[in-house]
Amino acid sequence: MSNIVVIGAGIAGISSALSLQRSLPHAKITILAEKFSPHLTSDIAAGYWMPYLVSFPQPDLLNRICRDTFEYISSLVKKEDAGAMWQSGYDVSREEREVPHWASLVKGFRRLSQEELDGFGGGYKSGHFFTTLALEPTTYIAYATREFLSKGGMIRQGRVKSLHELTAEFDTIINCSGLGARDLVGDDQVSPIRGQVLRVRAPRVKHFFCDGDYYCLLNSNFVVVGGTHDEGEWDTRVNEETARKIMEENVKRIPELKGAEIISHHVGLRPFRTSLRIEKETIRNAEGRETTVIHNYGHGGSGITLFWGCARRVVELLDIERSHL
Amino acid sequence: MSNIVVIGAGIAGISSALSLQRSLPHAKITILAEKFSPHLTSDIAAGYWMPYLVSFPQPDLLNRICRDTFEYISSLVKKEDAGAMWQSGYDVSREEREVPHWASLVKGFRRLSQEELDGFGGGYKSGHFFTTLALEPTTYIAYATREFLSKGGMIRQGRVKSLHELTAEFDTIINCSGLGARDLVGDDQVSPIRGQVLRVRAPRVKHFFCDGDYYCLLNSNFVVVGGTHDEGEWDTRVNEETARKIMEENVKRIPELKGAEIISHHVGLRPFRTSLRIEKETIRNAEGRETTVIHNYGHGGSGITLFWGCARRVVELLDIERSHL
Repeated sequence: MSNIVVIGAGIAGISSALSLQRSLPHAKITILAEKFSPHLTSDIAAGYWMPYLVSFPQPDLLNRICRDTFEYISSLVKKEDAGAMWQSGYDVSREEREVPHWASLVKGFRRLSQEELDGFGGGYKSGHFFTTLALEPTTYIAYATREFLSKGGMIRQGRVKSLHELTAEFDTIINCSGLGARDLVGDDQVSPIRGQVLRVRAPRVKHFFCDGDYYCLLNSNFVVVGGTHDEGEWDTRVNEETARKIMEENVKRIPELKGAEIISHHVGLRPFRTSLRIEKETIRNAEGRETTVIHNYGHGGSGITLFWGCARRVVELLDIERSHL
Repeated sequence: MSNIVVIGAGIAGISSALSLQRSLPHAKITILAEKFSPHLTSDIAAGYWMPYLVSFPQPDLLNRICRDTFEYISSLVKKEDAGAMWQSGYDVSREEREVPHWASLVKGFRRLSQEELDGFGGGYKSGHFFTTLALEPTTYIAYATREFLSKGGMIRQGRVKSLHELTAEFDTIINCSGLGARDLVGDDQVSPIRGQVLRVRAPRVKHFFCDGDYYCLLNSNFVVVGGTHDEGEWDTRVNEETARKIMEENVKRIPELKGAEIISHHVGLRPFRTSLRIEKETIRNAEGRETTVIHNYGHGGSGITLFWGCARRVVELLDIERSHL
């Protein structure tokens, strides 16, 4: 029987574990993580499906990963405790833009007229309206964790300094360490893109809005207002002046946000990598024993857009059908 | 100086008063009503802009009234305390339907594909997605009341049995008595269309839905789930079986509604009339003294869709420009 460890309890980790458990119901699967929800980068994400700040050289595979995730979130909407919902809104830009590759996946994708664009102020030149999915990460992680535990999955707290620590106990390692991959596997292609956001009570806001700089995304009980994308910035302290500016600029664009009550401030470090890493590696310990490693990290600002497709890809990379692990 | 009384403090009454006050800043304007918000039919309405259950023989005028109201609500969105917001959603039917006359007024009106229709279950044959306005009646009435009082308007509680009671004190009467017109002016074309609804906490629901029988409309802090349209029915008691059925049928169509927490149950009597009555009449008292009456009632299920256009029409019918009232 296979003995698998998943490093990391963010949305990538828990989903990889759940996906493996579905394909390998008899495997022993352990999630090993230093920190857990709600103290993760995932918990700060707005949980909105739209490819953003991610890079990958295989567009067909990336599209499949996006689509698999979209369809999975769609299937979760009917579960009252998974945190999934449909939402409609506006994605605008000051530049002319092509129709994105995912336009046919979301519902009712349409170009905005110049009159609609002008309605926001801000000098926008192009934009789209569409209906997409949102998944509240904290709610989903709790749901997925319950699922995982109810089917025999195990969870353990601990800090891993090197993959080699794990090779004696586990035959397979799934590396969902996010920014932690920088130290864990010495990957200096990994770096943070800092994002500062506010959570506000703005119950009149029924549409999302995103202009690349500023955005306003709907969760069930609050609105996530952002944001920044500070490349290479590790500082997780809240900047008050930035928060003030974020609110001010969003209110200019979305009048329903006026008078919103601020609930909390957050800073998250998006786990960016020059290219999303979803691949298999074989490592050997001192005695020459082989351990399979699947890397699944570097999701940048698209964790929610990619997580399930990546979790399915983890299973595929393990080549479970052929090897009957 | 003109001395005007507006009968009724629902959305039609307060808006007529406000509209008159804007055109006649020096007039003495009094709202006279038996009951006030939040104890009115207006307070039970979901506050959603879409022509529904209303009849009027002059389509051009009705369209103008609809449009004026739409534009007015649109102007209120930027006011944080007026209760106005944009919302998107689905209006579906089991019959083939023409594109409605107001399609060009709302934003992003598009026909739904059969696949989208099938997604709801329920055997729908046609449907539309669009972005329209909502106005929370209770919030708006409070806003409009503050505006009216701040500019010298007066409000008085009392029950009027006949318009003739008022002719000694007032030279102009605006009759916004809704269903009350049946007794007040003996209008037996007025009758109720009973509507039973629930207010629920369903924060994952970000789109409205309406299929003619069942609907789900968004307010800021709750979702209004309906409903019934019981013609001629005066019973305002909540029917528990009906409530259960309303929830069950809506949940089938809108998965995000699953697990919704019921806040309260309501029954409202829509003030229907065979034709919306917005017209001028002159009445004479025993001494032959003339009093101008403008009737503004019979809005059916379209109070929020018509209220401001009707309030402007009240001003127009008084012919203020010419008479310098």
